[in-house]
Amino acid sequence: MEKAMMALVYRGEGRAVLEERAVPVLQAPRDAIVRVTLSTICTSDLHILRGAVPRAKEGTVLGHEFVGEIVEAGPALSHLRPGDRVAANCITFCGDCWFCRQGFINNCERGGWELGCRIDGCQAEYVRVPFADQGLTRIPDGVSDENALFLGDILSSGYFGAELCEIRPGDTVAVIGAGPVGLCAMACASLFGAGRIIALDVDEGRLALARARGLCSDTVNPAREDAAGRVLALTGRGADGVIEAAGGKDTFQMAWEIARPNAVVALVAMYEESQAFPLPRMYGKNLIFKTGGVDAVHCSRLMKLIEAGRLNTDFLITHRGPLNRILEGYETFGQRRDGCLKWAVTPYERNKAQ
Amino acid sequence: MEKAMMALVYRGEGRAVLEERAVPVLQAPRDAIVRVTLSTICTSDLHILRGAVPRAKEGTVLGHEFVGEIVEAGPALSHLRPGDRVAANCITFCGDCWFCRQGFINNCERGGWELGCRIDGCQAEYVRVPFADQGLTRIPDGVSDENALFLGDILSSGYFGAELCEIRPGDTVAVIGAGPVGLCAMACASLFGAGRIIALDVDEGRLALARARGLCSDTVNPAREDAAGRVLALTGRGADGVIEAAGGKDTFQMAWEIARPNAVVALVAMYEESQAFPLPRMYGKNLIFKTGGVDAVHCSRLMKLIEAGRLNTDFLITHRGPLNRILEGYETFGQRRDGCLKWAVTPYERNKAQ
Amino acid sequence: MEKAMMALVYRGEGRAVLEERAVPVLQAPRDAIVRVTLSTICTSDLHILRGAVPRAKEGTVLGHEFVGEIVEAGPALSHLRPGDRVAANCITFCGDCWFCRQGFINNCERGGWELGCRIDGCQAEYVRVPFADQGLTRIPDGVSDENALFLGDILSSGYFGAELCEIRPGDTVAVIGAGPVGLCAMACASLFGAGRIIALDVDEGRLALARARGLCSDTVNPAREDAAGRVLALTGRGADGVIEAAGGKDTFQMAWEIARPNAVVALVAMYEESQAFPLPRMYGKNLIFKTGGVDAVHCSRLMKLIEAGRLNTDFLITHRGPLNRILEGYETFGQRRDGCLKWAVTPYERNKAQ
Amino acid sequence: MEKAMMALVYRGEGRAVLEERAVPVLQAPRDAIVRVTLSTICTSDLHILRGAVPRAKEGTVLGHEFVGEIVEAGPALSHLRPGDRVAANCITFCGDCWFCRQGFINNCERGGWELGCRIDGCQAEYVRVPFADQGLTRIPDGVSDENALFLGDILSSGYFGAELCEIRPGDTVAVIGAGPVGLCAMACASLFGAGRIIALDVDEGRLALARARGLCSDTVNPAREDAAGRVLALTGRGADGVIEAAGGKDTFQMAWEIARPNAVVALVAMYEESQAFPLPRMYGKNLIFKTGGVDAVHCSRLMKLIEAGRLNTDFLITHRGPLNRILEGYETFGQRRDGCLKWAVTPYERNKAQ
Repeated sequence: MEKAMMALVYRGEGRAVLEERAVPVLQAPRDAIVRVTLSTICTSDLHILRGAVPRAKEGTVLGHEFVGEIVEAGPALSHLRPGDRVAANCITFCGDCWFCRQGFINNCERGGWELGCRIDGCQAEYVRVPFADQGLTRIPDGVSDENALFLGDILSSGYFGAELCEIRPGDTVAVIGAGPVGLCAMACASLFGAGRIIALDVDEGRLALARARGLCSDTVNPAREDAAGRVLALTGRGADGVIEAAGGKDTFQMAWEIARPNAVVALVAMYEESQAFPLPRMYGKNLIFKTGGVDAVHCSRLMKLIEAGRLNTDFLITHRGPLNRILEGYETFGQRRDGCLKWAVTPYERNKAQ
Repeated sequence: MEKAMMALVYRGEGRAVLEERAVPVLQAPRDAIVRVTLSTICTSDLHILRGAVPRAKEGTVLGHEFVGEIVEAGPALSHLRPGDRVAANCITFCGDCWFCRQGFINNCERGGWELGCRIDGCQAEYVRVPFADQGLTRIPDGVSDENALFLGDILSSGYFGAELCEIRPGDTVAVIGAGPVGLCAMACASLFGAGRIIALDVDEGRLALARARGLCSDTVNPAREDAAGRVLALTGRGADGVIEAAGGKDTFQMAWEIARPNAVVALVAMYEESQAFPLPRMYGKNLIFKTGGVDAVHCSRLMKLIEAGRLNTDFLITHRGPLNRILEGYETFGQRRDGCLKWAVTPYERNKAQ
Repeated sequence: MEKAMMALVYRGEGRAVLEERAVPVLQAPRDAIVRVTLSTICTSDLHILRGAVPRAKEGTVLGHEFVGEIVEAGPALSHLRPGDRVAANCITFCGDCWFCRQGFINNCERGGWELGCRIDGCQAEYVRVPFADQGLTRIPDGVSDENALFLGDILSSGYFGAELCEIRPGDTVAVIGAGPVGLCAMACASLFGAGRIIALDVDEGRLALARARGLCSDTVNPAREDAAGRVLALTGRGADGVIEAAGGKDTFQMAWEIARPNAVVALVAMYEESQAFPLPRMYGKNLIFKTGGVDAVHCSRLMKLIEAGRLNTDFLITHRGPLNRILEGYETFGQRRDGCLKWAVTPYERNKAQ
Repeated sequence: MEKAMMALVYRGEGRAVLEERAVPVLQAPRDAIVRVTLSTICTSDLHILRGAVPRAKEGTVLGHEFVGEIVEAGPALSHLRPGDRVAANCITFCGDCWFCRQGFINNCERGGWELGCRIDGCQAEYVRVPFADQGLTRIPDGVSDENALFLGDILSSGYFGAELCEIRPGDTVAVIGAGPVGLCAMACASLFGAGRIIALDVDEGRLALARARGLCSDTVNPAREDAAGRVLALTGRGADGVIEAAGGKDTFQMAWEIARPNAVVALVAMYEESQAFPLPRMYGKNLIFKTGGVDAVHCSRLMKLIEAGRLNTDFLITHRGPLNRILEGYETFGQRRDGCLKWAVTPYERNKAQ
């Protein structure tokens, strides 16, 4: 194993620098060192660069969504060994504290969103993963890196949103935002038996993709039509469940307006501003709001579903390039240029220019 | 049966007039006519008088919380007959529409909050109850009018709040507001096995009552101490469930601040203003907010629990007087004068001055 | 409307006679008279003929699984009118009693399995349906009679079994019996997100069909291999849920043996004999057994799923013939001749020989 | 610490011998060595002695229900330290395997019922507890040894039975067997809000105790009256939930007969014989049977409830004596002599005769 590697480092608001770093080493018995074979850029990385994530530390290697191969496993890891192909969880969690025991891993007393935020992440050639027995899921032979890439972040987030909605077979679920998380949420809503899935987005291209891939039964563009009116017309009563995955200026209001009385509204987006909560106007509608940062506890279930062919997310990779070109990736992904949904980062290529 | 009766009529913002009205008659096969033996005044009556309830109609007899005796039963009522003692549900509901079938009776397609709001209510000598087979619960012989009086409104609301919180035995539940609904919520939280119940109110008298009756294990006065800090100190992690029954200026913020991550916050109060919903600040706390106007579907369960001695609410009646003095009752209850929790209205006394 | 019609009448053990009967008439305000456009024969009809259903009455018209057109609607039916195409529920239920209110319609105080058992059923030209607002589901324009035919009996039974199993996405579900109910159970297990579905049957043809239609991922033939061993090999721990839809000699024992610890075993078959319950042998395995006759409360959900294309059952109709030939249908279906899964009964043809 | 201690050792069917053994030592990083301050005898100990527990190993120190003080804590135990007072779980479980993660600790891949069965137990002066961070619960200062003694076995079993029954406030719960587990089940059923609790036992003394302590509202003696008839008369429909804690010859049949349709029947007793399962007779009653050996995962909840005064079990100690007299204890407890419910074993007294 080499001693030095390339990594994208957060250097304060607006600055990410591809630089040389030492290859990480084991620090605790449950650590693993993983060689990153494929990683990607997440909207939260953009949040960090915009300075909107106070917990992020300068000098940290960015990135938390990846697959790779274990090169070194700490002595307390009984189920993982060098050579294993693994997909990572975006949340670092011990599995032992009170919160972990309840499945509330996002509030782990020794973890939370750590990778690429407070400790070095995966937009690099190697990454150290703490509590690796919790945070890494083995990839079965029949599953490609591309299909496993999103397991522990956006696919988990989509599943989380669908699960929060308490969907029963035949229900109508509305998903606000047909971006990567929203598309995953649609796939998962279908898994729970949704009869009808309504995708809402202002981007016609994304709506067209959702339709083309059979992820939704209906699409609504709030920029062109009255969203609440359309959903009411389609459903009669409003949506049985709403997954808000956009986090836009008015998407919280839209979320509760398109919900039928007594619906669950799952807020899985990350908001940058406080919202108005017009309780007198919604009195008697008896809505349930579930706020969240993903509790990604179902990675092994999701991997089984991928293996069984019931979930497929590799189509989200619209762009790819080696770590050398990652800043171009940030730009393309951040601007949603050329219909970019996800930019996959392949390993650093030594003999190419950055 | 007399042809005329006395009734308190809503005559527009700020005006309630005790006047003579015709005794109501059956209008539909599932109606019942009830002679009111005991009724009471609810905070929602005050909301109407303040003009804060747009759906309220002028000219309507006020009141929706009462017990009485059936004097006439419509032909479609198989289980109720004249002479039955009954407690009323504050919600009018058909039991047949899609919402009723799900238990979401507050959104009944043919009902909702009708009595004393849109159709003549119970602050009178007689009242007509639509869908009486749904809206009236028989009072067993061993249960007094006083103990059954609150069944279909504030006791149901307290139960609703406790049920929304998904309490598991041993949980710590915080109840904001130690008024009538809050005290009922504490009694119900105990029924679900709460290990510790924390009452929060700025009124020391009400906190003292909650303690004295064994309805809470701890009290916190947010006017005198840092509520969030105290709850954190008492619990370690924050409350497992929060029932917000106060609807004050800052009680919504207090509600989510005293909750532990992943808690349910049940908002059973009626707010007069929109609230700020600081989603960025609570990101990752993964709270669940359940908003509500009571779905009072558990009246028969609650009556069984009263009969079994597991629930007791007659202590809430701190004041009483005949219908003749009901305006004094509004004044005393509205001002919380002399520690008034609930003013019970006994039948009109013909040979006394108003 | 004609005054007389043809109907298949139960005339005591082993005897079913196609004879002329009076066309039924309304008897109660919630009755409807339905012209049967397509019906079918159910295993329970065979149970009646074998004398194994004590509640069955001689002289009753057989049959309880059908679709048709309303020709007359009682005055208390607000949502149904003549001309409506409808699918029937095999259970007659009032919707109002305590059991119905809980969704336990099979124990309705005024109903239960009535049609074709205690009151005249659907293997006739017309049938009277009591509590028709509960027992009939409107068929949307886009849904064929063939696809709606099984809604209220075997599809509901399959759904009931899948729902009882508390399936979570990614679970492995084993279904014993790949007959009509078992195949419906597989389709519904998939709706709840099952990752892997194992079909067990001794009939290779039925297993092949289940595979060919994508209803299962694996098949096991207990006549040729050790079922428990195979399921254990496929799953590692045993099945997460088991639906026993066969009711054979040893299928109850097989059901609990192939289940992993803490699994739900749903017993939706009708057993003709008492079974041994070896509690000492299963001590500590902590299994849950749910026994049942279908509570078919989800007909409108299922119809939505059919309409949305998420459920499809018309392939079960392997044979068909007019009411004139229904006894041939009993024979073919009862003997599973020519791979018969379901025999559909079309209307009586007057100018043909019986 | 001494090197030798006294311990009751299982020496094959019918033989338990009080003999000298080496004081146990740490064997793994998560072990703790506990000085036993109070232990007790359980019905399962009698099962072992009768030779009815195949997994029990000869030569093992008996006993699995105790409280004590930690004298040595393995290096991997962060939350426990010497001097801590602790109550033990009867189940040994790792907390990490798939079953433990689901809460199914009775099926722990590295544990199960170990103490006093396969590894040395607590009817001794010292005991080694594996996975002590999972298996030991700290006793708060205000809780006595006597009140904590039953936490991890019979109180957990009673709670398990009540939880399995899915009790909702106001439900009627029937408990078969008013022995130690049954009495605990009654206390826990009350915690879940049961409105009425019916105790069934053939021992009038035990029924009288249940009544006197307010643990039940009604008692039925199946030896003197028709149990099913009495329960039906008391409830109208049968019990909403049944906890079978007796394991007698005919108590399984009684359990399902006294249940209302769709009830849960929790089988928490240990049966020595296979039972008849008359599925044809119960067809349509739609009962749910939950079989079990306790998954004692709620010890910290239960400890909180004891601390809060909501659960109290010390009254179960009807007899006590030092380890020297434990064989007398087995005799008295086994024969239920002098109304013995539980015999508490206090530490060995060196200067007394055995």
